[in-house]
Amino acid sequence: MVRVGPHHDGSALYVGTARPALGDRVPVRVRVPARGGVRSVSLRVLQDAEPTWVDATPDGADAGERWFTAEVPIHNPVTSYRVHLDRGRSGYSWLNGTGEHARDITDLADFRLTTFDPGPDWALDAVVYQVFPDRFARSGAERPVPAWAIPADWDDPVIPSGPGVSEQFYGGDLDGIRERLSHLQQLGITTLYLTPIFPARSNHRYNATTFETVDPLLGGDAALARLAGACHDAGLRIVGDLTTNHSGDDHAWFRAALADPMAPERSFYYFGDRDDYASWLGHRSLPKFDLESLELRDRMFGPGDSVVARWLREPYDLDGWRIDVANMTGRHGAHDHGAAVARLIRGTLAAVRPDSVLIAEYTNDFTADLRGDGWQGSMNYAGFGRPVWSWLVGPEYEESLLGVGSRIVRRPGTENVDTMRDFAAAVPWAVAARHWNLISSHDTARIRTVTGSGEASRLAAVMLMTYLGTPMVYAGDELGLQGRNGEDGRRPMPWDRPDRWDDETLRLHQELIALRRRHPALCRGGLRWVVRQADAIAFLRETADERLLVGAARAPWSGARLPRTLAPDGVAETLHGGVDLTITDAAVEVPGDGPIAAVWRLA
Amino acid sequence: MVRVGPHHDGSALYVGTARPALGDRVPVRVRVPARGGVRSVSLRVLQDAEPTWVDATPDGADAGERWFTAEVPIHNPVTSYRVHLDRGRSGYSWLNGTGEHARDITDLADFRLTTFDPGPDWALDAVVYQVFPDRFARSGAERPVPAWAIPADWDDPVIPSGPGVSEQFYGGDLDGIRERLSHLQQLGITTLYLTPIFPARSNHRYNATTFETVDPLLGGDAALARLAGACHDAGLRIVGDLTTNHSGDDHAWFRAALADPMAPERSFYYFGDRDDYASWLGHRSLPKFDLESLELRDRMFGPGDSVVARWLREPYDLDGWRIDVANMTGRHGAHDHGAAVARLIRGTLAAVRPDSVLIAEYTNDFTADLRGDGWQGSMNYAGFGRPVWSWLVGPEYEESLLGVGSRIVRRPGTENVDTMRDFAAAVPWAVAARHWNLISSHDTARIRTVTGSGEASRLAAVMLMTYLGTPMVYAGDELGLQGRNGEDGRRPMPWDRPDRWDDETLRLHQELIALRRRHPALCRGGLRWVVRQADAIAFLRETADERLLVGAARAPWSGARLPRTLAPDGVAETLHGGVDLTITDAAVEVPGDGPIAAVWRLA
Repeated sequence: MVRVGPHHDGSALYVGTARPALGDRVPVRVRVPARGGVRSVSLRVLQDAEPTWVDATPDGADAGERWFTAEVPIHNPVTSYRVHLDRGRSGYSWLNGTGEHARDITDLADFRLTTFDPGPDWALDAVVYQVFPDRFARSGAERPVPAWAIPADWDDPVIPSGPGVSEQFYGGDLDGIRERLSHLQQLGITTLYLTPIFPARSNHRYNATTFETVDPLLGGDAALARLAGACHDAGLRIVGDLTTNHSGDDHAWFRAALADPMAPERSFYYFGDRDDYASWLGHRSLPKFDLESLELRDRMFGPGDSVVARWLREPYDLDGWRIDVANMTGRHGAHDHGAAVARLIRGTLAAVRPDSVLIAEYTNDFTADLRGDGWQGSMNYAGFGRPVWSWLVGPEYEESLLGVGSRIVRRPGTENVDTMRDFAAAVPWAVAARHWNLISSHDTARIRTVTGSGEASRLAAVMLMTYLGTPMVYAGDELGLQGRNGEDGRRPMPWDRPDRWDDETLRLHQELIALRRRHPALCRGGLRWVVRQADAIAFLRETADERLLVGAARAPWSGARLPRTLAPDGVAETLHGGVDLTITDAAVEVPGDGPIAAVWRLA
Repeated sequence: MVRVGPHHDGSALYVGTARPALGDRVPVRVRVPARGGVRSVSLRVLQDAEPTWVDATPDGADAGERWFTAEVPIHNPVTSYRVHLDRGRSGYSWLNGTGEHARDITDLADFRLTTFDPGPDWALDAVVYQVFPDRFARSGAERPVPAWAIPADWDDPVIPSGPGVSEQFYGGDLDGIRERLSHLQQLGITTLYLTPIFPARSNHRYNATTFETVDPLLGGDAALARLAGACHDAGLRIVGDLTTNHSGDDHAWFRAALADPMAPERSFYYFGDRDDYASWLGHRSLPKFDLESLELRDRMFGPGDSVVARWLREPYDLDGWRIDVANMTGRHGAHDHGAAVARLIRGTLAAVRPDSVLIAEYTNDFTADLRGDGWQGSMNYAGFGRPVWSWLVGPEYEESLLGVGSRIVRRPGTENVDTMRDFAAAVPWAVAARHWNLISSHDTARIRTVTGSGEASRLAAVMLMTYLGTPMVYAGDELGLQGRNGEDGRRPMPWDRPDRWDDETLRLHQELIALRRRHPALCRGGLRWVVRQADAIAFLRETADERLLVGAARAPWSGARLPRTLAPDGVAETLHGGVDLTITDAAVEVPGDGPIAAVWRLA
């Protein structure tokens, strides 16, 4: 029988106030197995970095579980706490974000409540669709191809590496996206996220020449206004992508800085002696911004007519920003303005468009930065994508993914769940719930190629749609597109080649997104891990109203017997996956089928 | 056979530059078992929070081990890195401060190099002796007992709790300490640390009425000058104790603030409406300082004539400060000046007395604060004292220790070593090497009482004298004094009651301190855990010149077979403990005796 231990997390099932104010007392609940030997429960709450103690009082019982409630005083903007479980003669244990511990631990994985605005409520229910504009769809508008570009026909193979990678130009545009919004709607997408749309001498446009206008090759400002309007008319949100870490070396500001050492823009960059300057990872074409410059801050993300502010306003009305290279932004040598920059951008969002989202790109560890007062969440490569890849990577895939330094290794679910838990526990729940989870992006191989099988990639899609956080679908994943790395993964959408569509994968995405939107537990529920084995994992997503069990097995396994009390009424409805649970008098039995992923409703 | 894995730490054996500057490249070495399956070694180094990669190259071999070297570029004030071990077909693993991990991990336990001054070199070799002045020794000077005090004869029992606890007054004084310095010298102590000596209406003096003078009841300013002079003449350092978090409510500043709302001192405290004010953990007698006040900062720890500065200067010449309640200092509600205050105090030390120490009191987790630019180290309750107590606590001891919330639980060495490792890995090595480790203090029960046996308390003393960091001996522990809690543990030193001295414990302290001072590996060596079992633990302390093995067993155990390559010349000299190792062709065999603690030199 699987032991399901004591549990607490930051969801509404356990925390009474999503956004407390200083001075509030927040009711906090803990569930404890009825026969697990816990005598009493208290909370260790930090106040001004000093532990204080709050007794929890018994607060009823569910089938097989007892509840305890305590009131956490909100004395600081970030209130960190963990649960103390008194087990009588066998001592005490701690419950924090990584589970129960029968030893003393650091505070690093304590639960956290913050007084910060966690971000808009709509973001909790979002399903994001990432579009790389050059490769999504062409409107058919005729435009002259610029001199730097290597024009490609829509069906041409992409140049996967070497010369021409950034210049190969397919000519997708914003009106092309607009004309395909029905595809997003049929999928159930709620939010369109566009990689950069500012003019640049590359197909990826991360080396902007200006932030003042939309690239005319994409249709210009008017096309963005049309696209945003069409999105909003269709009930979709639209989010932009901005690089605050660097510009292209042909950006107007950098040109001005080079042309005249006395130009105000000179202070926007790190110039050394003569015309030497700092750049992103040593790429001279991407000069690094010096965010000590107050004028740069003002132009880039001040509350007035800055880049960040302008595009959130009419007629563009972007619903937020994804910030490129957020981890490095404001950081250079002895300068560390990372936290300040995040807060300043956040402040401008609050002033200009309070219900907008702000998601940071962290391709690696985000845990040191995401307190909740700056970035609302991050691209969740470290705490979701990479452990999913590592669990499901196929034998044929031998490349590294996003700078891990060696190829992705197939590891057991035990290890990968620990990694997911470590990253989730290191930030406030409000942040973890707003990360953009992903299994592919414009910077990675396609999940279909990583796993090497449609079956395993669909299993990853189930995890994407059911795990804590916002699912981000990289356009084309729903068709089962392939690609060996970030460039190869940018193959154009095969609109006119239905033979290249994997209908089973498309149907799965439609079903899963619909399932997610039908069940608030998947968007807003707590998360309890119940199975953590080499080949199988399972977790519960729970609200006060429903309990869903998500199970995934990458191979046949032994199955698991869960406590019968998880289905007190004897209900185990199969919502997805086509495999049924068996309910006996003694247990809820999860069968050992695999590969498979399924979602059940227990009651 | 015990598997001894790859290793790296921040000691000179592995890191080429103790205090790098921005722009430096620091040679960093990693040792890997010769037959452990590691194909290649590289470092993942964060630069501006982005992982970059540095290949390590083979750099010779010892018996059974291969060495690799890489150069870490120092791009930021704190440079965080970890080791990537390529294991070929079986994938890669990470080596960080908590050991080797066959999964992806957060950066929280990465190794760290900093450009900050780590603190004076002498501190690495220090053995600190903590004296609570009221209870250490009386000079015999006649002084009138103040009205608040309850005079006690030296042999009276202490009041362990309730009324009179803080007023019971034994009358120890500074000249009394001076007259007993020979005791410290005979022990081998290098640094005398005095709990507060400013006037206060209590025996502990943490509620100072002024920081301008030494308490006349202790002999006043002149007695401090005499004591400091005598210490320095005897080759001892002397460190003071300052509360920067609060004052007493009869402190001159607080009196001035109360008397006149327009007084400059009003801004030194958190006054609310009328004369309501914030205080330490709600104790109204201890009003909390508001360190937003620039004038308070200046008076308290500015580089001019501040409290911190003045006592570091002639004729007092203190060699540093231990800061009381450092974790809470500068923190109150929405205010968090904790890091700034630590840096400001550090700056004043640098300006006034650059070779002085600055140690912070953290009774709990210090990991979030100790980057190395403020406090040099902390009182190491969390990462040393508590796990040692938890490993060695006796069946009779049922109290909590320093607010853990329930009694200390006897746990296996496996768990307690993990706790020690977690805390050590969360801060730069330079900080971990400067913590003040302790097994008793004026705020805890005596180690002799916690363990319930002289044998086990002596075992704790061996760990204290051999583990990474500075040993702090609480005066009286060397005599085997007892005490059930922080108050009861403040029994006066029984100078005239040799029947109360535990000679074996005293001799052990002398031997261990001499051993430590004779072997740089114990002060400055790296630390590798090699045995981590329920009843036995062992670690290596190593420099380029010597390898010491420290083993401790709380009970008889199975013994362990270590790789024979740890003693390539077949040498295993017993330096302490009276139990010999057996060296065979195949192994270094550690016998299963216990309880015991021993130190061996391997070569």
